[in-house]
Amino acid sequence: MSTPGSDEDRAARVALTTLAEPGHREVWALVEEVGAPAALERLMRGDTPDATLNAAVRSRKAGIDPRRIAEATMRRAERLDARIVVPADDEWPYRVDELALLELESAGRINRHVRPPLCVWVRGGWPLGPTLERSLAVVGARAATGYGIETTTEIVSRLAEENWAVVSGGAFGIDAAAHRATLAAGGITVAVLACGVDRPYPAGNASLFDLIADTGLLISEWPPGSEPLRHRFLIRNRVIAAATAGTVLVEAGARSGAMQTMNRVLALGRVAMVVPGPVTSAMSVGCHEILRSRPDATLVTNASHVLEAVGRIGEYGVEPPRGPEHRRDSLDEESALVLEAVPARGSATTEQLAARAGLDVRTVLRRLSLLELAGLIERREGEIALRRRTEAAP
Amino acid sequence: MSTPGSDEDRAARVALTTLAEPGHREVWALVEEVGAPAALERLMRGDTPDATLNAAVRSRKAGIDPRRIAEATMRRAERLDARIVVPADDEWPYRVDELALLELESAGRINRHVRPPLCVWVRGGWPLGPTLERSLAVVGARAATGYGIETTTEIVSRLAEENWAVVSGGAFGIDAAAHRATLAAGGITVAVLACGVDRPYPAGNASLFDLIADTGLLISEWPPGSEPLRHRFLIRNRVIAAATAGTVLVEAGARSGAMQTMNRVLALGRVAMVVPGPVTSAMSVGCHEILRSRPDATLVTNASHVLEAVGRIGEYGVEPPRGPEHRRDSLDEESALVLEAVPARGSATTEQLAARAGLDVRTVLRRLSLLELAGLIERREGEIALRRRTEAAP
Repeated sequence: MSTPGSDEDRAARVALTTLAEPGHREVWALVEEVGAPAALERLMRGDTPDATLNAAVRSRKAGIDPRRIAEATMRRAERLDARIVVPADDEWPYRVDELALLELESAGRINRHVRPPLCVWVRGGWPLGPTLERSLAVVGARAATGYGIETTTEIVSRLAEENWAVVSGGAFGIDAAAHRATLAAGGITVAVLACGVDRPYPAGNASLFDLIADTGLLISEWPPGSEPLRHRFLIRNRVIAAATAGTVLVEAGARSGAMQTMNRVLALGRVAMVVPGPVTSAMSVGCHEILRSRPDATLVTNASHVLEAVGRIGEYGVEPPRGPEHRRDSLDEESALVLEAVPARGSATTEQLAARAGLDVRTVLRRLSLLELAGLIERREGEIALRRRTEAAP
Repeated sequence: MSTPGSDEDRAARVALTTLAEPGHREVWALVEEVGAPAALERLMRGDTPDATLNAAVRSRKAGIDPRRIAEATMRRAERLDARIVVPADDEWPYRVDELALLELESAGRINRHVRPPLCVWVRGGWPLGPTLERSLAVVGARAATGYGIETTTEIVSRLAEENWAVVSGGAFGIDAAAHRATLAAGGITVAVLACGVDRPYPAGNASLFDLIADTGLLISEWPPGSEPLRHRFLIRNRVIAAATAGTVLVEAGARSGAMQTMNRVLALGRVAMVVPGPVTSAMSVGCHEILRSRPDATLVTNASHVLEAVGRIGEYGVEPPRGPEHRRDSLDEESALVLEAVPARGSATTEQLAARAGLDVRTVLRRLSLLELAGLIERREGEIALRRRTEAAP
């Protein structure tokens, strides 16, 4: 396996983003298992257990070596003053790795694009991870009303004053109002895009994006040049949900994508906050739908309610709001078996855990890295122990 | 003990309302124990275990025989075409008797006026009990906004079309809008007053009250001539909460009486429904406060949500929304002991229950009448048995 963070690892991750959309379950699992360069080899050979994936890759690469494309992409990023951040980098936003533990089903169909990003393109001067540590997402309808814009501005101004970075999706309406209010308050705002950071969408927000790149962060999982395809917004939303301490939804129409985002926010144990509105407004129907169907979503009417709801997260935004018990609940079966095998006191070797859990050592190793990311276990002198309390990331 | 429903019982109940405000815990308990005429005697002699009550009665009767006042009151009611309804009457609204089981504490102080009415004055042609069986309360701020009035009208029109009687408090604002929308839809509306039915308050709604008396019901626990004293509105609210299948709150300012009403609605196992509004509106602050602090309150934005929430109550509005389990939770200690003593199968005599519960027979008899009212037990051939299912009142 190549060294994580090496040039080879980095280039392979970039190349993989040209072969499959971010968050792909099988691609991510393969990278975890054999490393990015070997995973790339296997995808290019069409040698994965997933026939659909193999076919998709065949049609996508169309005879062009993705490593060539990756090189060109990386040169292009350099010219744009955009950097590529990979999990081995210090500034990697560790929170998104909890997507590794997410089990989501919608109408019986497991969503295929829920796993962590392989890499992220970044424009802007702040280190990505530390900025997102103390961040909140504020999102909502493109066709926002004056009421929604006013409420967003009110809430966001206070969050920025309290030194929370404000994350949104760069769209018209609520998103743009959230970015603008943060900028106006002198805060840091982060736009998470569903297209390349060189051509932020929508073009009508171009001057806003320039300001954000100058004073905040523009980020994307897609390489420069990527189009804002419709399905990419839904894939992108999981990063907004995962990277922040909580998400505030200000306005949403009926059956909007907001429901999906809020379900992910809650599944990840983040704080889901919803602003109500007039029952006569079509732009509040989605908000009320969520408040009616998800009793774990919190009704908020002002910034104090938001700060109160995320207050338990503490100064550095490290403690997840629902605590380890919640994360345990969302573990897949193998991870749960491995976690159960870890002794309540003291520590155990990987081999001991494999024997106790009835799993092979390779599986145990993969699951241990997930459990470590989720803050449930820690390594002590080469052995594995339960993590006593959640500490701030270094 | 005099026969319930006799002239003597009726006159004594009326006289008692001139000595103590409705819902008084000790007065009600005394009436349950010894009957209304004997209770009246003891109050007039200052012979109750409650020194505060004795002193209050002394200062209130001021040398005038309350029985004389009662006679005058009853003649006055007759002239007004108002009738006095007592628990022995067929049209007694049985739901209010569940106030007998209500244990309420606010900031450590037990509220003294939470018990069922002793009698109710009624103006209007409909039988009181059957009308309230299928009724919903719609209440809210006097200083309602156009938004609140519009939303009330929208919701209430549909409820009236679905043959629900709409109950409210006759006040300006949301209350008046609820009454008016019901009248406009050709439905039955019930105004529960905090003053005599001969001088409904506020006078500005006089023509509305005339219409309600002609086509619906005007009711009050206070005898004709009674003033709408400030504290009476809070006492009155418990009847609105108890007599209906559920309460919809449309607008409420911060720290309004609506919180108290909604707490009673929930404590009685009724459906508490709250309409959200713009976070910028002072008249929605109370609604949002309740939705934030009471997760058992339901956010509703339209009549379909209301009908869905009370749907489980069924065609005749008999089944309480939370079922017997909920009512068991709100039992006082003695009632709980008696209920536990009732065998799971078959039946037992009062004496057997007293022995099992470790209580005297008189206490058991009193508690049994409460448990029967709450639909938890039934009498079978002179013995006591658990009630298998809640059936419609005759």
